[in-house]
Amino acid sequence: MRALSASEAAAAIEAGTLTSEKLVQACLDRIAERDGTVKAWVHLDPALALKQARAADAAKGGVLRGIPVGVKDIIDTYDMPTGHNSPIFEGKVPFGDAACVALCRTANAVILGKTVTTEFANRHPGPTTNPHDPAHTPGGSSSGSAAAVADGHVPLAFGTQTGGSVIRPAAYCGVIGYKPTFGDFSRVGIKMQCHSVDTLGLMARTLDDIALFRGAVLALPPVPVARDVAAPRIGFLRTPIWDEAEDDTKALLEKTAAQLSAAGATVLDMAFGRAFNDILDDHGAITGWESRRNYADERLRNPDKVSAELMAILTRSESISLERYVAAQRKAVAFREHVDSLFDKVDVLLCPSAPGEAPKGQEFTGDPRFNSIWTLAGTPCVTLPAGTGDMGLPLGIQLVGLRHEDDRLLGTAAWVAARL
Amino acid sequence: MRALSASEAAAAIEAGTLTSEKLVQACLDRIAERDGTVKAWVHLDPALALKQARAADAAKGGVLRGIPVGVKDIIDTYDMPTGHNSPIFEGKVPFGDAACVALCRTANAVILGKTVTTEFANRHPGPTTNPHDPAHTPGGSSSGSAAAVADGHVPLAFGTQTGGSVIRPAAYCGVIGYKPTFGDFSRVGIKMQCHSVDTLGLMARTLDDIALFRGAVLALPPVPVARDVAAPRIGFLRTPIWDEAEDDTKALLEKTAAQLSAAGATVLDMAFGRAFNDILDDHGAITGWESRRNYADERLRNPDKVSAELMAILTRSESISLERYVAAQRKAVAFREHVDSLFDKVDVLLCPSAPGEAPKGQEFTGDPRFNSIWTLAGTPCVTLPAGTGDMGLPLGIQLVGLRHEDDRLLGTAAWVAARL
Repeated sequence: MRALSASEAAAAIEAGTLTSEKLVQACLDRIAERDGTVKAWVHLDPALALKQARAADAAKGGVLRGIPVGVKDIIDTYDMPTGHNSPIFEGKVPFGDAACVALCRTANAVILGKTVTTEFANRHPGPTTNPHDPAHTPGGSSSGSAAAVADGHVPLAFGTQTGGSVIRPAAYCGVIGYKPTFGDFSRVGIKMQCHSVDTLGLMARTLDDIALFRGAVLALPPVPVARDVAAPRIGFLRTPIWDEAEDDTKALLEKTAAQLSAAGATVLDMAFGRAFNDILDDHGAITGWESRRNYADERLRNPDKVSAELMAILTRSESISLERYVAAQRKAVAFREHVDSLFDKVDVLLCPSAPGEAPKGQEFTGDPRFNSIWTLAGTPCVTLPAGTGDMGLPLGIQLVGLRHEDDRLLGTAAWVAARL
Repeated sequence: MRALSASEAAAAIEAGTLTSEKLVQACLDRIAERDGTVKAWVHLDPALALKQARAADAAKGGVLRGIPVGVKDIIDTYDMPTGHNSPIFEGKVPFGDAACVALCRTANAVILGKTVTTEFANRHPGPTTNPHDPAHTPGGSSSGSAAAVADGHVPLAFGTQTGGSVIRPAAYCGVIGYKPTFGDFSRVGIKMQCHSVDTLGLMARTLDDIALFRGAVLALPPVPVARDVAAPRIGFLRTPIWDEAEDDTKALLEKTAAQLSAAGATVLDMAFGRAFNDILDDHGAITGWESRRNYADERLRNPDKVSAELMAILTRSESISLERYVAAQRKAVAFREHVDSLFDKVDVLLCPSAPGEAPKGQEFTGDPRFNSIWTLAGTPCVTLPAGTGDMGLPLGIQLVGLRHEDDRLLGTAAWVAARL
């Protein structure tokens, strides 16, 4: 039953054929069986989870009635520590819940536990392994959330994305990752890295679950994923870093484009205007400038507890001038308009979710650049599992929608997923 | 010596004619004398302040060498409680400093204490009185910061603005308030109300102090306020709510425009395009939609500890649909471009800082709408003291600059201030 989707489980709980307590126990059993290898969870309190489940069963109702949710460990929880994978915060319990957690509780969810993050959702990795092969990274920074959802520990989990921290690990682990339009989801109680791009995202195993979860986080009735959309117009946008994708990923994308075209979609080759070929440099200038200042407290009071990787990034960022930052912000505004304009011709953009399969080892969580472009663009994005690569690990395809048209993106993604 | 500006005091400390310890003691003495009436401070620990001052004297150097800074009580401090003027947070000490506080400490400042805020920087007032007449409000939400700077308790203080929470109280108290371009200042560790508009701002008694303080918060060498700017082109923009300003304020603005024109400025009457006459409704839709979700934890776990005013606002906001929110976000993007375009013709915009003098009583902190317009626009703004109104209380004029041209705005403001 831990293999049920959230939507299926919520329906069964509503129908009285399942209880939250049974579902949560099944998830805890799966975690007990597997987490010695996967290491997706940094904090788990089975008694607390079951207590919440019984309360959810008693309360009835709610968009996420009795459904367990995994919470990335840079997101505050009042009843569990929020450690940020940093010795500075280890064991510290925040005063309150992040808004997204409180909205889940309001929707009658069970907050199952905290999932492993890289240090402050930056690069320094945690211990999580890829559930498809423990010798490989699950990706990051939302490492534990992606692995937990993929491995059947929990149907829903929160991630956050500043570069590629939701879409990439979801693709590496073979689940669905979703980053909403910038601004839609509250970031209250989420450790801020770069305010101009940090985005709360969702992971699940089905698109219906993404829609359900999105409804809960928006505090709105979920909008069911449309199943009756017409064959979409798809812009195949290889991005300026296409050549850095691995051969299996390039082949997958080309094959997918052909397949969708054969299924009735109109597929157009598209590219950014030349002015935006170096847009990743602007993402780098913005995130570098902001993160250097946003970590001022850690740098001042606890420099010895910040990882060497993060310190090196923050030190390098010292060279980014205010003028460079401002230029990048202006470029980003123009880029968002440019990306919006691409949707005059298409319903969705298609591009890689990552350069390839999950890299070997736990040290490097992979290259986020195929995602950073869209984090800066503020567009909604979804990654769909789409087979495996040369090493037998999952590959994903990334679909990008027009800003503020998230429901439409999910409908188009369903059309695509049904034809993969 | 507590009447010294921060720039003067820093120079004296650097020259060895003053110590931080003496300056801080003078500020503490002034507070002891006056705060029974003004009630600007919610947390003050004289021993801790003096300890910091001695450390600053010993450390030497730093942009804010030994200068005391007041911190609005929605901004985290690791060594003092951060109460948000809410029983939910009363007495709670955060794990770390907000980035802006850490950046001040990095610049060798003394964090003097926490200043009174309205509840969560929203409407429910604190006890602070206007130092010019305790029967009147100091404005809000940055009530204590404005009053403390005005009354000589501290030369510098942090405020935050979601509607009019920096510029308005600064104007009511007769000090300089400054809101930077949206995005420039880190918001890490500041209680978030509405992520699309919340902006950290500064209060001081001189423009030079604003420039100094801005340098510290940007972690950059301060850019001295230019004193050699040519007579500026000024757009007199009465805003769509001009008719709601009081007569003394209207007269002040008209007189100022004439005075600056006589002094050599080119003054043009300007107005928003008609599409933006109701832009305040869009500010309301964005802040209402976001705050309702951002306070999800307080609403769920502590509804009885949230003020009736805030609960009423959050309840009213339930009627704002996602579609309305998105429309407002799109309008805001267009509005920012429109406002930017106004600067093709002028260097600065001139408008009221508030509808009039500080209202009588402590219950209503005043109307923020002359500020909310610019908070949504993301423009840098400064309010300059400009005489008194019919009741003998301070009035301000608001100068608005082009986004990302904050240094230029401060130079133009200096030109204007020299001619008031």
